[in-house]
Amino acid sequence: MTQTPDRDTRHNARMARKKDVVDDRIAAAQAERGVLLVNTGNGKGKSSAGFGLVARALGHRMRVGVVQFIKGRSDTGEEAFFRTQPGVAWHVMGEGFTWETQDRARDVATAAAAWAVAREMLQNPEVGLVVLDELNIALKYQYLDVDRVLADLRARPPMQHVVVTGRGAPPALVEAADTVTDMTPVKHAFAAGVKAMSGMEW
Amino acid sequence: MTQTPDRDTRHNARMARKKDVVDDRIAAAQAERGVLLVNTGNGKGKSSAGFGLVARALGHRMRVGVVQFIKGRSDTGEEAFFRTQPGVAWHVMGEGFTWETQDRARDVATAAAAWAVAREMLQNPEVGLVVLDELNIALKYQYLDVDRVLADLRARPPMQHVVVTGRGAPPALVEAADTVTDMTPVKHAFAAGVKAMSGMEW
Repeated sequence: MTQTPDRDTRHNARMARKKDVVDDRIAAAQAERGVLLVNTGNGKGKSSAGFGLVARALGHRMRVGVVQFIKGRSDTGEEAFFRTQPGVAWHVMGEGFTWETQDRARDVATAAAAWAVAREMLQNPEVGLVVLDELNIALKYQYLDVDRVLADLRARPPMQHVVVTGRGAPPALVEAADTVTDMTPVKHAFAAGVKAMSGMEW
Repeated sequence: MTQTPDRDTRHNARMARKKDVVDDRIAAAQAERGVLLVNTGNGKGKSSAGFGLVARALGHRMRVGVVQFIKGRSDTGEEAFFRTQPGVAWHVMGEGFTWETQDRARDVATAAAAWAVAREMLQNPEVGLVVLDELNIALKYQYLDVDRVLADLRARPPMQHVVVTGRGAPPALVEAADTVTDMTPVKHAFAAGVKAMSGMEW
């Protein structure tokens, strides 16, 4: 690429101004507490971003708890990998997507059992990060009561981070969260006829 | 929650119809190949979703290569964690966000060196997943030529997955990708005055 001194000078001046803005914003944000993060939307990356934070937290020597509320399949790479890591408690509580089980009463009972495990993590200040994978699905189908879930989230230790994933996050959860991202699909390989590939989709 | 037989019956019938639709879609998607995934947008989760896929791929015993084109800070949890994992080659090539370095010529040289490392991974069929973290930033500021990058991506081994992250993915990369997600911010703890917390933002 051709470099001109003019272009470099303009770029450098623009970046100096940007640095001032960024530095000011960082100086203004000084509160330290656990963050409630929600990854929702119809696109890819909701759960995988949660699993990336598991790695990030482990790198800071935190203890991590994961509860999977919906079990898509039994041979996921993330489960195989993180189960071998010290510091991780990994619980697959769901039995499958709700259109696989086709038994609402059983799904409600399963979700209640999963929440009991999650609640224990949410009461333990030694757990630095709790990932509640696909919890939004259990809330969407009203397998769990959102008010009860929110009460337990609010009562958690002040420095504990929580990640909630799944499509269709309920408005009350979005309201309660610190950070919410909508994973918006632009395009997906599946629509182009590509099979769900290991290492990518599971 | 109160359960009525009617509600359960209606739910189960709806889920049976949904299962048919999902099963048909899965049957239609049969191509097996490496996927080019792009995580872009202004919201949280672009890089962490990439790191979640690193864990997923390692769980399938793949070898993984990571190149970080922009180095935000030197003490990230993900780097500390994954550097200790067998099967991962982790390269931090960038020197900082471009508004930190304020030296375009140096940024261009750094990006070229980073691409040389990435290119080697993209030529190695034993590497199952390559994560090009914040590559979009290097493309956005034209530190790297997008056509050259796309040519190397297209020439990679057919079963190799690639994840590209960063705001402002160039249209040509979006066009070439199989799966593209826009991480759209709904709200962010930073705006509410919460400091970038370890285990969450770094």
